[in-house]
Amino acid sequence: MAIAKGYAATDASKPLTPLTFERREPNDDDVVISVQYCGVCHSDIHQARNEWGNSRYPMVPGHEVAGVVSAVGSKVTKFKVGDRVGVGCFVNSCIGCATRDLDYEHFLPGLTQTYNDVEADGETPTYGGYSDSIVVKEGYVLSFPDNIPLDSGAPLLCAGITLYSPLRHWKAGPGKKVAIVGMGGLGHMGVKLGAAMGADITVLSQTLSKKEDGLRLGAKEYYATSDAETFTKLAGTFDLIINTVGTAIDWNAYLNLLKFDGSMVLVGVPEHAVPVHAFSIIAGRKSLSGSMIGSIKETQEMLDFCGEHNIVSEIEKIAIQDINEAYERVIKSDVRYRFVIDIASLAA
Amino acid sequence: MAIAKGYAATDASKPLTPLTFERREPNDDDVVISVQYCGVCHSDIHQARNEWGNSRYPMVPGHEVAGVVSAVGSKVTKFKVGDRVGVGCFVNSCIGCATRDLDYEHFLPGLTQTYNDVEADGETPTYGGYSDSIVVKEGYVLSFPDNIPLDSGAPLLCAGITLYSPLRHWKAGPGKKVAIVGMGGLGHMGVKLGAAMGADITVLSQTLSKKEDGLRLGAKEYYATSDAETFTKLAGTFDLIINTVGTAIDWNAYLNLLKFDGSMVLVGVPEHAVPVHAFSIIAGRKSLSGSMIGSIKETQEMLDFCGEHNIVSEIEKIAIQDINEAYERVIKSDVRYRFVIDIASLAA
Repeated sequence: MAIAKGYAATDASKPLTPLTFERREPNDDDVVISVQYCGVCHSDIHQARNEWGNSRYPMVPGHEVAGVVSAVGSKVTKFKVGDRVGVGCFVNSCIGCATRDLDYEHFLPGLTQTYNDVEADGETPTYGGYSDSIVVKEGYVLSFPDNIPLDSGAPLLCAGITLYSPLRHWKAGPGKKVAIVGMGGLGHMGVKLGAAMGADITVLSQTLSKKEDGLRLGAKEYYATSDAETFTKLAGTFDLIINTVGTAIDWNAYLNLLKFDGSMVLVGVPEHAVPVHAFSIIAGRKSLSGSMIGSIKETQEMLDFCGEHNIVSEIEKIAIQDINEAYERVIKSDVRYRFVIDIASLAA
Repeated sequence: MAIAKGYAATDASKPLTPLTFERREPNDDDVVISVQYCGVCHSDIHQARNEWGNSRYPMVPGHEVAGVVSAVGSKVTKFKVGDRVGVGCFVNSCIGCATRDLDYEHFLPGLTQTYNDVEADGETPTYGGYSDSIVVKEGYVLSFPDNIPLDSGAPLLCAGITLYSPLRHWKAGPGKKVAIVGMGGLGHMGVKLGAAMGADITVLSQTLSKKEDGLRLGAKEYYATSDAETFTKLAGTFDLIINTVGTAIDWNAYLNLLKFDGSMVLVGVPEHAVPVHAFSIIAGRKSLSGSMIGSIKETQEMLDFCGEHNIVSEIEKIAIQDINEAYERVIKSDVRYRFVIDIASLAA
């Protein structure tokens, strides 16, 4: 087995600290990746701190992994040493369906998460991208287009696909009025992707503090949800609302902003259930729907789309030694718009 | 103006009593209908008792109205004296769109309800079908197919269309597993209509007391929701769930019975909001949606479909003098499956 270096949570209440650990032996169909950058997702924090109650320690977080292929197994056909590649939120699925051109394997049981999970053998822990290397089955490795840098491209692998998938599925495009609720790591990707698809994008953010950014990234309009007038002014406006906010907000107020036959899609998960009035969806045949990342096929399609439209994440690059401070800033929404760890700092 | 006889609520706490009242003068585009039967909808009770807080008294309820044309205005082209016709939940809309072949005028503002509302002049009250006559614009009058009796056909005008519309919109048909939650006035129509569309129908009812009926009307399977095992056994089973239950039930438990990409559609309105866990819809890209009656175009299509498939409501016919007792029985779900008032009893 190969020795890897990384940063890990060792229990729910302690800061992340350096860890040296073993990566599994590559199989014939595995790709070994030298990690260069890894995005910092809010779910890394939830899991590092056991806020979902299912944490395994030591945990090396990170599922926005970008790097370069350093070795391939004998049966690998899609990748070669030197390729610029990425790994997203999962590294295997129950029936190996990512290799069968399915496009919903991420919704099937038996998905293997990139970290905080175990491999198909039921024993070997998976460790994420806050580390210098990772070993992943070829079917779960993504290709970066040549014009997408690995640092600002890394967040596409979770934040990007999380927005791309529902925008595509609910047909964002010319003539469609789409609201993105929340202007954070997820929301800012929704603005860029939705605008590139040709939809008319409005940002609904708590305040107007990021308005300039929102308009620069492609939004046509920008409203503060702290202003009650926003909800009267925009009633019945949108075909699609994508709600990236993971705290409890009154969904009924947002459902009222939909047109007839409109959908609000949740991609953020509030801790507690939110009360929904039946009438909020019955009057207007509306839908409250959910979406979660995307399939491998769809993720590659998203990366290719980003390549065509020159779309990357807005990032703040950090050294891995600054990860604990970065976590505190993510919690305070004090990041524009995604932290990306420069893995070279591990050697410092 | 013509004098009509009917039964009315005069305030929220009193039983319905006989009322003699004036129907508006017919216009050129109006149809005068001699009412023969009127179905009893749970919403009649909610409104008679001011449970939605918007009641106008005296109120003549009834929006499942079936009768025979007794006179037509000079510009009426679609109906003639003697035609067997029906009137459903609304008798006008903001822009007269029912005459323009629109199919969602029932979701637009400015709908005129068949009763407990005012005509387009903003003054003249509308009175429903618990009466011997009604005057309705031609564009809001429906035709009964020859083989549909007016008594068991009357409930199609609300209960029928309320189920037909979502079954069609969410594409119930061969190969689709559809659950109907609740085996009452709405639910039993869902079983008949869904089975006629070729879908594989399962009833989810509190107990098995109506199982025999459910299977006879077209369901393939029938489960008790009071049995916790139902929710483990059927997890991930349905493409579509139509929830006709107007009391608070745990929607999350039912969302868990959907397949990937499935929808649960509410057509019953619980009084209070129901807590929804984001994860109930995010895991599986599911939707919680609503639907409300249907357009005039869709209602006629439904009646024609019922004609082709010989579908009517299962009814208990009552004299209008028994309406107050019938209300008590509706509240206790003690009716198989819809009360229909024989309006001839008014003359008794």
